[in-house]
Amino acid sequence: MKAHIITIGDEILIGQTLNTNAAFIGEQLNLISVDVISSSVVGDSEEFILAEFQRTFEQNDIVIVTGGLGPTHDDVTRSSIVKFFDTELVEDRDVLTDIENIFKKRGREITETNKDQALVPKIAEVIRNKKGTAPGTWIEMKKKVFISLPGVPYEMKDMMKEIVIPKLLDKYSKDLTKIAKQTLIIMTTGIAESHLYEKLRDLNLVKEGTTMAFLPSQFGVKLRLTVTAPKPDEAKNKITEIEQIIRSKIGRYIYGKNEESIENVVAKSLIDRGLRLSVAESCTGGLIANRLTNFAGSSRFFERGVIAYSNAAKVELLKVDEDLIQEKGAVSLEVCLQMAEGVRAISGADIGLATTGIMGPTGGSDKKPVGTVFIGICDEKVVTAREFHFGDDRILNKERTSQAAIEMLRRNLLGIPYEE
Amino acid sequence: MKAHIITIGDEILIGQTLNTNAAFIGEQLNLISVDVISSSVVGDSEEFILAEFQRTFEQNDIVIVTGGLGPTHDDVTRSSIVKFFDTELVEDRDVLTDIENIFKKRGREITETNKDQALVPKIAEVIRNKKGTAPGTWIEMKKKVFISLPGVPYEMKDMMKEIVIPKLLDKYSKDLTKIAKQTLIIMTTGIAESHLYEKLRDLNLVKEGTTMAFLPSQFGVKLRLTVTAPKPDEAKNKITEIEQIIRSKIGRYIYGKNEESIENVVAKSLIDRGLRLSVAESCTGGLIANRLTNFAGSSRFFERGVIAYSNAAKVELLKVDEDLIQEKGAVSLEVCLQMAEGVRAISGADIGLATTGIMGPTGGSDKKPVGTVFIGICDEKVVTAREFHFGDDRILNKERTSQAAIEMLRRNLLGIPYEE
Repeated sequence: MKAHIITIGDEILIGQTLNTNAAFIGEQLNLISVDVISSSVVGDSEEFILAEFQRTFEQNDIVIVTGGLGPTHDDVTRSSIVKFFDTELVEDRDVLTDIENIFKKRGREITETNKDQALVPKIAEVIRNKKGTAPGTWIEMKKKVFISLPGVPYEMKDMMKEIVIPKLLDKYSKDLTKIAKQTLIIMTTGIAESHLYEKLRDLNLVKEGTTMAFLPSQFGVKLRLTVTAPKPDEAKNKITEIEQIIRSKIGRYIYGKNEESIENVVAKSLIDRGLRLSVAESCTGGLIANRLTNFAGSSRFFERGVIAYSNAAKVELLKVDEDLIQEKGAVSLEVCLQMAEGVRAISGADIGLATTGIMGPTGGSDKKPVGTVFIGICDEKVVTAREFHFGDDRILNKERTSQAAIEMLRRNLLGIPYEE
Repeated sequence: MKAHIITIGDEILIGQTLNTNAAFIGEQLNLISVDVISSSVVGDSEEFILAEFQRTFEQNDIVIVTGGLGPTHDDVTRSSIVKFFDTELVEDRDVLTDIENIFKKRGREITETNKDQALVPKIAEVIRNKKGTAPGTWIEMKKKVFISLPGVPYEMKDMMKEIVIPKLLDKYSKDLTKIAKQTLIIMTTGIAESHLYEKLRDLNLVKEGTTMAFLPSQFGVKLRLTVTAPKPDEAKNKITEIEQIIRSKIGRYIYGKNEESIENVVAKSLIDRGLRLSVAESCTGGLIANRLTNFAGSSRFFERGVIAYSNAAKVELLKVDEDLIQEKGAVSLEVCLQMAEGVRAISGADIGLATTGIMGPTGGSDKKPVGTVFIGICDEKVVTAREFHFGDDRILNKERTSQAAIEMLRRNLLGIPYEE
């Protein structure tokens, strides 16, 4: 089953909006073993949209289009579909009721523009939208499917998961189960791509019908393994075997699998152990706390956070020694240690985690250039801090620091030394 | 000048990585009036990559490819370029020196895999990479340009800005200045897309050779205006005129222009007024502080943040009345007001901002369902809080709450009432 994803919108082409929709649809299709061969973005122009429908519907079994279904005049996907399939628009009563209900619930007045969204291409099956006003459509032609979904991410996601995926599984069940493909993503952090590659290059995975891709970012390197085999069980066994070999070589750098975030891994580990955490952030400015509290149920382990940006806050809230700040500087190993100890002490948490550093782009000195960071951790037994040197991009530095801090926490919980 | 952007990598197709590169390249090209007609993503397969090179280089003046240039075996862009242009690889001494210097600076050992990256297609001009090991290439053929850049975002961005854009401006200067196009993005928040549309629909912009697109997200609705005119000055005047009309209709909802973030607007406003801010976050878990401290120079206005997740933290750090929490609940207007007052008082800041709410997906009750949020603000003269009702997605709820809180702060600074 070959699929192509089309995203519609000038805002995507000119970089005003990130294409999170194509990413989500690609992920969902891949999970059910549909091969996403390619994806494309075209602007809000009927001419280009029609040409892209033509080209991609010819080459693929499944085409999914998102965007351009809103209530405003710049949304031309629906009219393009009508032309492409040579059909007409008809009012759908259920959709109209859905739209009316949404406005009733929000306590807002319905507009004519919104009512107009109940018009759908005659040959299409409607994909109802529970979270918004633009319906999706499902059109079958020969053995192919052409699907159109709204561009608002949370509406599209809901429709994709609840309706499109089950319908695709239903329609293509025979073809999809023939494929014995297994994918595994191994998440690592704290090691460079080339060093990881050197440690793993002698595995000779390609020979065994397996592919391994290295995906680096400021958060670490992901390894994506893909295995194909004649039968599902074989593929499963093979990938498990390879995973074991990889773990034996680089286990300490691996924090998780299949896109699980390191904050989720650490959150679950803290909850399992019944431990409570407090954080004292200076340079990361709340990013560590924000990431950890993205975990649903974070109040079970997250006690409090202090964003001690000013020196006064460090002294008053974290009991850092004022003279020490004067002597060593707010960005120093010694102050970092006191911040970690301080936040643990004032909150009565089991673990204290602290960051202080120079995120840039300015504010560095010869001795402490932009990118200098200290991360400290302290629990019942240990109090320790490490120095890091990152780059000169402020946002990347915040992200790298938060990642290294959460990794220090992970290693602290597992008793893996951070060095090496 | 028509351009197409190709992003290479299975990880993009199957949604493991967001395509931030295509967004950045599109933005940069649009800024110099190059028309980004379309963009596409293909997997790590030489066959598909070659077909995409063929198709897009035929239809466009400029093709920019990113990704697939890393040191590992899954990177096949370079070999595809060699085949497409029927050329061969040669070692580039400057690139080799660049690579050696990078490893020297990082204090890491260079590997053979890295040295191999100094091989470049013979007919290409090298685009040097100051931040990483994979060089880019620039190939001219007839009047067209084919550009290849690495996929690591901060490397690609640097090369794009420092080398590619200046070279394109140089090469196409005559053609690019012929185009009199002006784009303006007006950033709004606190009003729904359809209501914004109703307020603006009678402008009849289309008739005047202007397009207006509505781009909604959890952070608000962006209006993208595009104007074309025979001469640059005319286009400029026309867009300024339209901007004035739009401001007269929906001014209070507009926080900025051209993708400036609301946190930047507020940060500058606080610095201009010499005001210091402290925040007390419960449900947003540090997100507000994180966003505000993304501003370079945030220490000039950001005094401290308290992430008072536990009730103990609310009482101990923010002096919230323990009995009040028992009586009204931690998620209540009354507690929110005390949090805002508390963080202002303990820190001596000019303004205190506070959030408390139920982010979900669980933890709601009939009286306070998931999505219930209180945001409070307090300064020398005012102490006020408002109740909001968002949805049931935890991350979206955090984002919406942070946006509404920063918007309350903005309106507080400008003296615009939040109601309506």
